[in-house]
Amino acid sequence: MSNKNNNNKTNKNKLWGGRFDHGPAEAMELLNASIHFDKRLAEEDITGSIAHATMLATQGIISDADLSEIKRGLAQISEEIAAGQFDFKIEQEDIHMNIEARLSDIIGEPAGRLHTARSRNDQVATDFRLWTRSSLDSIVIELKAFQKALLGLAEQHVETLIPGTTHLQAAQPVSLAHHLLAYVEMAGRDVARLGDCRKRMNLSPLGAGALAGTSFPIDRDMTAKLLGFSAPMQNSIDAVSDRDFALEFLAALTISATHLSRMAEEIVIWSSQPYSYIVLDDAFSTGSSIMPQKRNPDGAELIRAKVGRIMGNLVAMLTVMKGLPLAYGKDMQEDKEAVFDSVDHFILSLKALTGMVATLSVNKDAMAAATMKGHITATDLADWLVQNLNIPFRRAHEITGSLVGMADQKKCELDKLSLSDMQSIEADITDGIYDVLDPRRALNSRSSLGGTAPSAVKEQLKLWKEQLK
Amino acid sequence: MSNKNNNNKTNKNKLWGGRFDHGPAEAMELLNASIHFDKRLAEEDITGSIAHATMLATQGIISDADLSEIKRGLAQISEEIAAGQFDFKIEQEDIHMNIEARLSDIIGEPAGRLHTARSRNDQVATDFRLWTRSSLDSIVIELKAFQKALLGLAEQHVETLIPGTTHLQAAQPVSLAHHLLAYVEMAGRDVARLGDCRKRMNLSPLGAGALAGTSFPIDRDMTAKLLGFSAPMQNSIDAVSDRDFALEFLAALTISATHLSRMAEEIVIWSSQPYSYIVLDDAFSTGSSIMPQKRNPDGAELIRAKVGRIMGNLVAMLTVMKGLPLAYGKDMQEDKEAVFDSVDHFILSLKALTGMVATLSVNKDAMAAATMKGHITATDLADWLVQNLNIPFRRAHEITGSLVGMADQKKCELDKLSLSDMQSIEADITDGIYDVLDPRRALNSRSSLGGTAPSAVKEQLKLWKEQLK
Amino acid sequence: MSNKNNNNKTNKNKLWGGRFDHGPAEAMELLNASIHFDKRLAEEDITGSIAHATMLATQGIISDADLSEIKRGLAQISEEIAAGQFDFKIEQEDIHMNIEARLSDIIGEPAGRLHTARSRNDQVATDFRLWTRSSLDSIVIELKAFQKALLGLAEQHVETLIPGTTHLQAAQPVSLAHHLLAYVEMAGRDVARLGDCRKRMNLSPLGAGALAGTSFPIDRDMTAKLLGFSAPMQNSIDAVSDRDFALEFLAALTISATHLSRMAEEIVIWSSQPYSYIVLDDAFSTGSSIMPQKRNPDGAELIRAKVGRIMGNLVAMLTVMKGLPLAYGKDMQEDKEAVFDSVDHFILSLKALTGMVATLSVNKDAMAAATMKGHITATDLADWLVQNLNIPFRRAHEITGSLVGMADQKKCELDKLSLSDMQSIEADITDGIYDVLDPRRALNSRSSLGGTAPSAVKEQLKLWKEQLK
Amino acid sequence: MSNKNNNNKTNKNKLWGGRFDHGPAEAMELLNASIHFDKRLAEEDITGSIAHATMLATQGIISDADLSEIKRGLAQISEEIAAGQFDFKIEQEDIHMNIEARLSDIIGEPAGRLHTARSRNDQVATDFRLWTRSSLDSIVIELKAFQKALLGLAEQHVETLIPGTTHLQAAQPVSLAHHLLAYVEMAGRDVARLGDCRKRMNLSPLGAGALAGTSFPIDRDMTAKLLGFSAPMQNSIDAVSDRDFALEFLAALTISATHLSRMAEEIVIWSSQPYSYIVLDDAFSTGSSIMPQKRNPDGAELIRAKVGRIMGNLVAMLTVMKGLPLAYGKDMQEDKEAVFDSVDHFILSLKALTGMVATLSVNKDAMAAATMKGHITATDLADWLVQNLNIPFRRAHEITGSLVGMADQKKCELDKLSLSDMQSIEADITDGIYDVLDPRRALNSRSSLGGTAPSAVKEQLKLWKEQLK
Repeated sequence: MSNKNNNNKTNKNKLWGGRFDHGPAEAMELLNASIHFDKRLAEEDITGSIAHATMLATQGIISDADLSEIKRGLAQISEEIAAGQFDFKIEQEDIHMNIEARLSDIIGEPAGRLHTARSRNDQVATDFRLWTRSSLDSIVIELKAFQKALLGLAEQHVETLIPGTTHLQAAQPVSLAHHLLAYVEMAGRDVARLGDCRKRMNLSPLGAGALAGTSFPIDRDMTAKLLGFSAPMQNSIDAVSDRDFALEFLAALTISATHLSRMAEEIVIWSSQPYSYIVLDDAFSTGSSIMPQKRNPDGAELIRAKVGRIMGNLVAMLTVMKGLPLAYGKDMQEDKEAVFDSVDHFILSLKALTGMVATLSVNKDAMAAATMKGHITATDLADWLVQNLNIPFRRAHEITGSLVGMADQKKCELDKLSLSDMQSIEADITDGIYDVLDPRRALNSRSSLGGTAPSAVKEQLKLWKEQLK
Repeated sequence: MSNKNNNNKTNKNKLWGGRFDHGPAEAMELLNASIHFDKRLAEEDITGSIAHATMLATQGIISDADLSEIKRGLAQISEEIAAGQFDFKIEQEDIHMNIEARLSDIIGEPAGRLHTARSRNDQVATDFRLWTRSSLDSIVIELKAFQKALLGLAEQHVETLIPGTTHLQAAQPVSLAHHLLAYVEMAGRDVARLGDCRKRMNLSPLGAGALAGTSFPIDRDMTAKLLGFSAPMQNSIDAVSDRDFALEFLAALTISATHLSRMAEEIVIWSSQPYSYIVLDDAFSTGSSIMPQKRNPDGAELIRAKVGRIMGNLVAMLTVMKGLPLAYGKDMQEDKEAVFDSVDHFILSLKALTGMVATLSVNKDAMAAATMKGHITATDLADWLVQNLNIPFRRAHEITGSLVGMADQKKCELDKLSLSDMQSIEADITDGIYDVLDPRRALNSRSSLGGTAPSAVKEQLKLWKEQLK
Repeated sequence: MSNKNNNNKTNKNKLWGGRFDHGPAEAMELLNASIHFDKRLAEEDITGSIAHATMLATQGIISDADLSEIKRGLAQISEEIAAGQFDFKIEQEDIHMNIEARLSDIIGEPAGRLHTARSRNDQVATDFRLWTRSSLDSIVIELKAFQKALLGLAEQHVETLIPGTTHLQAAQPVSLAHHLLAYVEMAGRDVARLGDCRKRMNLSPLGAGALAGTSFPIDRDMTAKLLGFSAPMQNSIDAVSDRDFALEFLAALTISATHLSRMAEEIVIWSSQPYSYIVLDDAFSTGSSIMPQKRNPDGAELIRAKVGRIMGNLVAMLTVMKGLPLAYGKDMQEDKEAVFDSVDHFILSLKALTGMVATLSVNKDAMAAATMKGHITATDLADWLVQNLNIPFRRAHEITGSLVGMADQKKCELDKLSLSDMQSIEADITDGIYDVLDPRRALNSRSSLGGTAPSAVKEQLKLWKEQLK
Repeated sequence: MSNKNNNNKTNKNKLWGGRFDHGPAEAMELLNASIHFDKRLAEEDITGSIAHATMLATQGIISDADLSEIKRGLAQISEEIAAGQFDFKIEQEDIHMNIEARLSDIIGEPAGRLHTARSRNDQVATDFRLWTRSSLDSIVIELKAFQKALLGLAEQHVETLIPGTTHLQAAQPVSLAHHLLAYVEMAGRDVARLGDCRKRMNLSPLGAGALAGTSFPIDRDMTAKLLGFSAPMQNSIDAVSDRDFALEFLAALTISATHLSRMAEEIVIWSSQPYSYIVLDDAFSTGSSIMPQKRNPDGAELIRAKVGRIMGNLVAMLTVMKGLPLAYGKDMQEDKEAVFDSVDHFILSLKALTGMVATLSVNKDAMAAATMKGHITATDLADWLVQNLNIPFRRAHEITGSLVGMADQKKCELDKLSLSDMQSIEADITDGIYDVLDPRRALNSRSSLGGTAPSAVKEQLKLWKEQLK
């Protein structure tokens, strides 16, 4: 901390007005400024200002001429930003002040009337809600594209056998389509959860002022409507203090990211040589700088990792909000980067995963071969004992366990045990039992609602296709 | 790791059947067992089993006589547990096996038929959803009690002045009721968020089996209905793999806990000597073992701290779910303690906070005195310049800043500046300006929708009272 | 919140003395009490009190007769606790007050002199440091046992080939011992990190009083020495406010837990049917209630999951400490459960993992077979080109890539390409190249320091065996 | 996911060699690329390459002429980057490949020899350790500057009275210097913790190759020495898989950030009107866009918030490492942004806080006035009873509590109670008791080691001044 920081007398911040003797120290200015990230809110800030000014004019708080000038100036700023010609200045702190200062350059005095009956506290809350709402809507579109890619692959693999696993151990044969549809369900919940989040997000803080409302005769319903919000927030202190919408949104993204990470993990494992269930397209594989044979699922690994980052942003934001007195505290400025970063990485992960699903090759032979191992139809054998010999399930489970033990000793699968071998454990077994030891037959038999039988899977597929039409 | 762990040959686990040569090592058994915590699911397990057995009998999969026996046995177990006479055994691993084993003791063979067409995977998912749904409902009731306590206090303090702060600096005078209603809004969002969470939680995994469904002719709609679920889950793999309902619930609790922590922080600060805005009741204060004068807000501090614990549980559970291949993995056994602990500490915190609000004493004089400091009506002065002299807001803000600077130099508040002092900065100021420098008048003026004027606050109060009737 | 909570007038807390009109509400008492978990500090509390009393007597602050009585009473309490006969009372809040109250029952007035020149603030900090130090020491012992189990297995597998992977794709053949030794390194860092943590933990807060020190002529060096601390802490405010020792300890456990989770992940994957690299002993395997063939690595999955819990505790504690004003705040009471829970689950995980390593069976054939796939010696081919034909590495990498592509097209491994095939890509290749395509030869060649050649691995083994003697 | 992504056939990645038929999809390329952040490693990459090439030449693996060319080329690249003229290309993925490709442009064939006996896996681990080590060293310097600023302020305030608080309630009077020195202690632990972290960080992974070492006759001790590492890492698999150094560093920063947040919280509270203990310099204050009177401690609030972000990065990185199979996985690419972001925000926070401490004004009168309230010398009264009347502490505590209660009823402080009032509670009290009720006398009496008496504080000051010389 040099003297330079402490004697910045010439650099007074005009925005704060006459009370300050000298301007911020360099470290303070760097710490305080948000323009390097909140410039992403430029479009929302302009939209919000137009709505505010329109209302001010309608209510007679500013003149129509002022409104007209303000609109003209903001339109020009919008073009300058789009063209990359806008000069964002750190001494103007944030996007709101950068735009207002530029507006003043362009239109002069009327610019000074735009901030009437408004504070940066309600302004920033409005802008950030608009941005987040728009991102949420984009993510819902991407989640549906992901679901469609899954459905596309699933439709080709209703009859494709794969070992269903628990604990990564072969459990029961399932349809690959059924497995893929589990991810469609998860994404479906994600879409619904975001939809619910949107309801609480889509309320207007504009008009709350610094924290207490205003004495100007504003019309908050009008600005809410102009900005597509469903209603104004009911308490001005809450309106500027609340970041629940960001927290809930980050939580929803984190939960969804765990789903992506689960599929990514499966892609990594299924691509490994001993599995070889799938081959990623070249477009989603990477090589090595030293090992020329490598064909790495880097994309899947990165998707698996992103849940850490997105959860980290949630943790950061929750920690920031912990124990903050009302109303606004500058701590809350940390909200935007957490959301921006999570949105960017979530969308990128989701697009890449959708692309992987859309382009990967399935090795049906390897999957089918794997269903011939691991006594995968042992449950069917036990169920046969229940259904045909009226043995209680617990006892049937024990008998089957003994048969599995026998098969292991003989280093064979269950269907290679002879009938007499089987009868040495349970005398009433008949050769009808061999029917249920075939994985495909086992698959077909699990036709209960939501089950893996192709008949049941087709029902699930049909429901989802209708829903995603 | 002693030999003891590795030569546990006599202790075979009957539940897993004939394939195992010897039983678990001690460390493994301790790590694996869940009975010490999942016994809290006992009631839900029995309820779920009765529904399952009822369906099995209706579908003709078990006999009515078996159903009758199963019901009788489970009723007895329920009584034994309620009476504290049930012997929970670690070698039975979990609550499900403890109950089934005891059922077998009581009713013999029919107990072995209960697990037909069911796996622990769908069973535990069902039980845990039932428990969590019930906790969610309890929490909603407590949140409403909290809102009512806040409303009760707010009704007495619509006209009570307090400095509204941003950055903990005096900003504008607000109504204490208005401040309290901000917390009512937060709790209202919490209730709504939990309600949405409940929709996704309230689906039945029962009948999904281990992961693939079953070949028995079960009726999943019936069990769903019997257990109060709105519908069965549509994909059996998802049904046993999904813990979104727990994640979303933990996220909702964490967000709500940030609200409690914010009020707790304010209680701590407001109780400190320099503020002395409030005095906690003896019932919510603590003393010191060494300092006889102490009257500590320990409860508020603990509430402030609990958000850490509840967020920690969310982080734990999200991390557990990260990158898990489908379907069930034992990792997911970590779900229950995270939820149990969060529910317990959230409810305890909420009850204590409700009690504090209901019993604290407000020191109106200290609050009112604080509104006489910090130039708290400076915004009103600026607004007066806009409204009366048609000065643009930005310029009015600057003029006011200069007046504040002048007052600081004279070590007085704004209303103690003489008119000629004021006119030395802005010549057109008239003595009408002194009207707006009174905090109460400033309060009354902010009557915009959601604002802090008593008229607006009464509207908010009215809406909430109706909603909480 | 019933009236019951607010009219608890008869239940005055004697500990806090005469200032309180009535006792705590029920929710407050439940929230505030710590006796249900901090009774684990009983032994440390008694040890600390004996040291404190001994010093008081030495300094003439209490009499030798009082000291004698105090020691007698504390010894009796210690026995009562060990025998399970101590009656822990929630109305005495915590372990410190439970013990002092019981001491008063046993020895009368001298008990009231024990707390001279001491506060609960320095007392609890002392007790908790003693407990944590002891846990840290136990964990170091367990980490070394884990390292020894790894070394024991590694010694048998210096020559065992396994595909070394990056991105879970076959990269280069490595020695299984070498792979295991990577975990020995990680555990070695964990031990060192805990050792450094211990240095900062092992300082005495005793004598700091409530926060400001004391006017009694105490000797803090004496109590520090009696309790095995290296020195007294230098600032009394810091001494009671600091929980860095717990944070640093939790961070060290979390980092170590990521190591355990990495090995657990490998155990899960290596136990899956397509890999079948290892078979866990029955003592560390579990079965299924529905699938009789299952042999699940539940223990490994739980170990993998525990990192979530342990990190969750770290997050909880960091969040608690965030933004706490000095000195002691009741928020800090959350420290103990976070540490207790992490210690318990870390030790359990580590013991189970050590047991798994000590008892698992290695399937050398499956590992060796896997090294024959995936062009695992492609790097060796490229290096041969560099070393024998003086081709720059980047160009050699490209040539090898083309050869791998050719082998893929012919669906064979690199060593099955004919010399003329190879020469069609790079004319100067000679049949000497086939020498380096053998995985074992490739293994033996990587003899650089820390490399995977048996010669280098034996060096690493030797170093560790000496270090762990 | 458009077709565009999946038919990128013309854009083959040369780096991965001949095996790939077409290049990456757009989403994949964006996800995979790291050049937008890892360009911060440019200098370290060049330093590492020079060390590697120097060793290769010394060992005769490349010629001296090649080394000379490589050095020349890298020097030119270094200048290009410093001058902002280097063209970072996303299709070259990362900084390592960008530099190697440019080197090839400049020097041709010898560039292809630089990567001999090296992989990106050991290269990136080396570069990242060098960068992190350098950041750690910078942070230690900043922490010491912070300590010095604290010492500077403390020296002026050894005799300045302030209410020491626990639970934010007045507890005992302390010296402001003593309070500030508590933060010096915390920072001292932070420095020590970083020093220990550095030991484990400062080992060389270079020469580990992809994961298995190399068959080239490299000299790892030489490269380690050239790069300032204390030794090579002993296991090549560990060398490329380990990110403990980043985790431990992030944990240390997070713990230190809790300290900064605690001081920041105090600054926020102490700056609020009811406290008015301190006034931040204009250089570290901010104003409001709507409230002209505001003088906000935004900087302190942002510092308080940053602990969330820094902990979020730690959580992200721990989650990424959880359950990763050995050796390198692309997940680990997330390490760098987590560390970069934490370093940037930690340093900025620390500099700003140092500046605040160096420039703030202390309001001694407000502090002193506060010590006259809250019965702050009650402990001294109790101690007087023990020392003068030989009353056991517990009984003295009760008597004092009653006196406090009496004073509260009379709405006065303890020293305003008459002697007869006091004697009505405890008959033996004499008027000597009034001596200890003066806050300054109470301060002076706590002269135990580490206590708050000026005599003890001066000892602490002296020790630190010597240590920081």
